Amino acid sequence: MPRIFPADSVGLVTPQRMDVNEPLTLACARVLDSYTLVYETYGTLNADKSNAVLICHALSGHHHAAGYHHENDTKAGWWDNCIGPNKAIDTNQFFVVALNNLGGCHGSSGPSSLNPETGRIYGPDFPLVTVRDWVQVQARLSDYLGIDCWAAIVGGSLGGMQVLQWAVDFPARLRSAVIIASAPKLSAQNIAFNEVARQSILSDPDFHGGRYTEMDTIPKRGLILARMVGHITYLSDDAMKQKFGRDLKSGKFLYGYDVEFQVESYLRHQGEVFSQNFDANTYLLMTKALDYFDPAREFDDNLQTALARATCRFLVISFTTDWRFAPERSQEIVNALMAQGKQVAYADIDAPQGHDSFLFPIPRYVTLLKNFMNSIDGGRHAS
Amino acid sequence: MPRIFPADSVGLVTPQRMDVNEPLTLACARVLDSYTLVYETYGTLNADKSNAVLICHALSGHHHAAGYHHENDTKAGWWDNCIGPNKAIDTNQFFVVALNNLGGCHGSSGPSSLNPETGRIYGPDFPLVTVRDWVQVQARLSDYLGIDCWAAIVGGSLGGMQVLQWAVDFPARLRSAVIIASAPKLSAQNIAFNEVARQSILSDPDFHGGRYTEMDTIPKRGLILARMVGHITYLSDDAMKQKFGRDLKSGKFLYGYDVEFQVESYLRHQGEVFSQNFDANTYLLMTKALDYFDPAREFDDNLQTALARATCRFLVISFTTDWRFAPERSQEIVNALMAQGKQVAYADIDAPQGHDSFLFPIPRYVTLLKNFMNSIDGGRHAS
Repeated sequence: MPRIFPADSVGLVTPQRMDVNEPLTLACARVLDSYTLVYETYGTLNADKSNAVLICHALSGHHHAAGYHHENDTKAGWWDNCIGPNKAIDTNQFFVVALNNLGGCHGSSGPSSLNPETGRIYGPDFPLVTVRDWVQVQARLSDYLGIDCWAAIVGGSLGGMQVLQWAVDFPARLRSAVIIASAPKLSAQNIAFNEVARQSILSDPDFHGGRYTEMDTIPKRGLILARMVGHITYLSDDAMKQKFGRDLKSGKFLYGYDVEFQVESYLRHQGEVFSQNFDANTYLLMTKALDYFDPAREFDDNLQTALARATCRFLVISFTTDWRFAPERSQEIVNALMAQGKQVAYADIDAPQGHDSFLFPIPRYVTLLKNFMNSIDGGRHAS
Repeated sequence: MPRIFPADSVGLVTPQRMDVNEPLTLACARVLDSYTLVYETYGTLNADKSNAVLICHALSGHHHAAGYHHENDTKAGWWDNCIGPNKAIDTNQFFVVALNNLGGCHGSSGPSSLNPETGRIYGPDFPLVTVRDWVQVQARLSDYLGIDCWAAIVGGSLGGMQVLQWAVDFPARLRSAVIIASAPKLSAQNIAFNEVARQSILSDPDFHGGRYTEMDTIPKRGLILARMVGHITYLSDDAMKQKFGRDLKSGKFLYGYDVEFQVESYLRHQGEVFSQNFDANTYLLMTKALDYFDPAREFDDNLQTALARATCRFLVISFTTDWRFAPERSQEIVNALMAQGKQVAYADIDAPQGHDSFLFPIPRYVTLLKNFMNSIDGGRHAS
């Protein structure tokens, strides 16, 4: 008997692929002659193609944002709590597209793909890509799908940066922008944490200059450390306090270097799982894309000037305990938009989960997102 | 011609050592039959031995707190800006003692010392020590120096924890306690950062289970990573912004993994220098001492009860931008002291430097410390 998925689930989904043979010139000036993008879609594109919503993923995200991949799949897509029939991003109304970005490690061309020119795995030869490059590539996917203008482009964290870049680079191709738990550029502290993560990987003897696959190994220690330090920045001090406090695994001090505190156990586990599921070269590349992101840079470091060309409506959301991209960082975006007289709504959501809040079904946040999505023209007339 | 040191410098100092042959039972239940402490003194002990001040050091500190070690020494002790003639801790008034804690790597017995029982370097066989152990050892040093009661015990960060433990364990042996940029115990987030630092070292293939010296190597990569992540937590987001912002080393993006942003260059340099000067086993041990510190633990997790026995005056100082041990953490100590009717003064100093503020000569902070020290009985009647 086939599995019955929840009524508000998009159910079984099958990843699709777009193979591009048109050369792509990247910000780093290198050219990719061909590449593949993997993506998923949920819901139905309406006749005038006005109900399409693009989901941009964050550092370790991918194209599998909602639903299940097979009958026995127990793990839904990473944003399943917001995408589905009658959910905040309602697939009864919208045709939702989620992709794995170029350079990723979940099916789109990236460091772990075969380089068609050499027949070998790219590894460190895959070019570094920027948020702007991703937006260019996403625009090609839009063309391929026949979508001239997205009803909305939505993303959290690094995903929100892609949304912001869309508004600057292709103002006529989106009607709404939803930027969640993001920032207009990284701070020195943000870059510093990324650099620790990178050095963890780069200095792992199993990294082999990025050619670890050919050496039949992975820089596991480096990936674990990178994820551990990253994970600390995703959680709030309060969330960690509530979740672990100073609880001891065995109830007493052991006076050694095995796990003593629960928080140590948690971090090691997170690192271990991540190291088995994520490509090290992609992780490096993603952190650099974050570091480079700075849409104001080409506009005399003036974010207002950069955003002057934007024409869409904006919803900006931050979370009170997010210290990776604090509410003040979202407010920089909001202030620049307001100074330019753009349509922008902003909410700072009271949530204890820190940066990770954007992935949680926090009622006020989800309701706000749902209301905003419901107000989008074209959204109510699917198919 | 001999060098003329600044008039407010303690000038040339020579480290001294105390060799103890009386067994010491540690919190971990292991016994050290003998050990050595290295310490320095500045100023003159008065006749009734009432003007002695003990300085407790932080994670990477040591006994060399003030003055110079030789005529051509360009680097003064780590707290030279606060210790010296007419300085905040005035060596015309006070006899100041600074030691390297047990387990350290600057001369006191620690993992890099010879184990007298085996004739080999202790390495990982050196027992883990706690703040309470340190205070026991410091009490032995007090006995050795003939100091029944310290005019003041002073420390920042992990040093402040030792001061707090003194007030609980030996209330009759100090008249004043100065606790700077400290906390009554680590939070889950604090422990998490320590754990990343430890895993960096422990997972470095050159760590060799702590026996790296015998293998004629050091876990350099691990030490660099540990220091990099630590350093981020010592600085404030603001301090990093002011110091580095998003400045690029070469003025443009390089699209590779060499240094691009100035903050990366700074962190790598800090890590490199540290890895050449600090012992990895000691670093591990120090982070565990931090994790274990929790004077309220034996008092039903009630800090007030723990502090009920304290009889000294307290000065507690925090810094507005310190997020490693935020002002709220100092206020936990202050609130517990006030609830017990203890004499306590508290100041939250406006300073941009984050946790590192306690090492900087910030005028309001230094003046406050000086005034407090001046008000100590016995301090004005040196020799």
